Amino acid sequence: TAFTPSESCGDDPLPSWNDGPAKQAILDFVAKVTNEGGPDFVLPADRIATFDNDGTLWVEQPMYTQIVFAFDRIKAAAPDHPEWKTTEPFAAALVNDYKAVFAEGEKSGVKLLMIGHAGMTPDAFEQIVVDWLATAKHPRFDRPYTQLVYQPMVEMLEFLRANEFKTFIVSGGGIDFMRPWTEKAYGIPRDQVVGSCIEVKFELIDGQPTLMRLPAANFVDDGPGKPVGIQRFIGQRPILAFGNSDGDFEMLQWTTAGDGPRLGLIVHHTDAVREYAYDRDSMVGQLKRGLDAAKQEGWVLVSMKDDWKKIFSFEED
Amino acid sequence: TAFTPSESCGDDPLPSWNDGPAKQAILDFVAKVTNEGGPDFVLPADRIATFDNDGTLWVEQPMYTQIVFAFDRIKAAAPDHPEWKTTEPFAAALVNDYKAVFAEGEKSGVKLLMIGHAGMTPDAFEQIVVDWLATAKHPRFDRPYTQLVYQPMVEMLEFLRANEFKTFIVSGGGIDFMRPWTEKAYGIPRDQVVGSCIEVKFELIDGQPTLMRLPAANFVDDGPGKPVGIQRFIGQRPILAFGNSDGDFEMLQWTTAGDGPRLGLIVHHTDAVREYAYDRDSMVGQLKRGLDAAKQEGWVLVSMKDDWKKIFSFEED
Ligand SMILES: [Ca+2]
Ligand SMILES: [Ca+2]
Repeated sequence: TAFTPSESCGDDPLPSWNDGPAKQAILDFVAKVTNEGGPDFVLPADRIATFDNDGTLWVEQPMYTQIVFAFDRIKAAAPDHPEWKTTEPFAAALVNDYKAVFAEGEKSGVKLLMIGHAGMTPDAFEQIVVDWLATAKHPRFDRPYTQLVYQPMVEMLEFLRANEFKTFIVSGGGIDFMRPWTEKAYGIPRDQVVGSCIEVKFELIDGQPTLMRLPAANFVDDGPGKPVGIQRFIGQRPILAFGNSDGDFEMLQWTTAGDGPRLGLIVHHTDAVREYAYDRDSMVGQLKRGLDAAKQEGWVLVSMKDDWKKIFSFEED
Repeated sequence: TAFTPSESCGDDPLPSWNDGPAKQAILDFVAKVTNEGGPDFVLPADRIATFDNDGTLWVEQPMYTQIVFAFDRIKAAAPDHPEWKTTEPFAAALVNDYKAVFAEGEKSGVKLLMIGHAGMTPDAFEQIVVDWLATAKHPRFDRPYTQLVYQPMVEMLEFLRANEFKTFIVSGGGIDFMRPWTEKAYGIPRDQVVGSCIEVKFELIDGQPTLMRLPAANFVDDGPGKPVGIQRFIGQRPILAFGNSDGDFEMLQWTTAGDGPRLGLIVHHTDAVREYAYDRDSMVGQLKRGLDAAKQEGWVLVSMKDDWKKIFSFEED
């Protein structure tokens, strides 16, 4: 018989997933919402799927990538600010003391983020992000951060799009920190990225129309902010949402409380050997409420250790 | 020879446009940015086109459709508010005195908009919009407002998408007033609509995850707000922008000031017989700065009277 692509590649749309309840839940959900004439059919225009980014699509340990970036920005600006050596939260940032910075709370973190992220145009900021991502490496995996995306999730995103889903990122991370690379890493275009924003102002500078990033938060897309961001940017309730921490709790609630077929999923980081194992007590990506509520809410816990055959594309088969 | 679709339908992608400089500018622009290997080639991912809505894609005279809607909402709520009969801006709204309401300025308009638009869920608001659009009729054309979309613009949107452009609405109108009908009217999905927003809050009501619309403006997507909205929602500078009033001035500036091929266009309402004729002195859709700057900025003035063969799809050929 003739050689066909399906014989050479296999028919499995999720080859990096082990057979098991999580994979089955995804396959079953997509099968039923695309089954025209079936009781759970969903029109393509309503096949909206939202994904958290840090810890759901790429590695977030030992520290959120954008925080590592922000600390590097502070270090780069430090020579002009000798006072930072003795002023918190800058002093802590300069020595990578994440715990101290986090202990000072959200306000302190926002203050740090404003330093390296504002007072420039979006284009200038994007260039800084692109340059940083080209050279920065993860301390454990010794690879660029954009290589640390989860292969099973990339496959799932592709599988959903092949079934006429529209895939979105809905992340607490900065929207402009993600947009430069999400198309290449995940196949998600810039306008389908929802995230935290700072204020931007339009002005004429030397007669040139210019956008300027201001040192003030506009919107925090985390926790109860996620359903709000979904409403504002996407304009309709997703039928599928995938997260990994309690910052995704309200997005999962909002998604799965809708009428008709719904699927909520949580990446559970259970693999200290291949990635990291953490949940209730983690400073980064804490998962406590979600773990307690998953069963009752019908959310699928995806165990990295058990459900993922392969985590990164660079792993040997 | 065999019967082919192009022989039956004609090859013209813009049949409702008269031949002339405006139509030619659109055809030339699309030809050059899609000419792979040519000096002006633009990757599909960067083919972003933004369109104003009121007066650019549909009729805005004698009054913006959403204001007519808002006044109807006020009238519906008036029995519970006898004090409105003697309190501005409500008293003026109750007798459709647009001039008086506008004279009181933006703050007054926002106040009116909050009345009929907040204190309910997005779903409830959407139902009100859908119900209203199903019955309300334009005072002159005696047709539902959604039939008063400009056929040449619908063709242009389709032509752009056929050439791998991604088309967006960027309107001063309320984002949630547009989203229920833009897919059907323009082929523009909900998440590709950028507009003015009110605050939305997530809360549990009787244990149910709920979004609630609050009576406070979140973002005004007009004038200098348009480039800001573009940056926030779309995340990249368009290569083509189409507007009709001075509220589009900064969007046109921002779009056409970018590097590489750019196209800015303005619908000039010059046809009092088939639609309306207005520009500098109009209360609605005022076009003054844009008219003065178009030539120097290289923006194409599209004369409704001269450039559009047909304005509405219901016109006889
Ligand atoms: Ca996360
Ligand atoms: Ca307009």
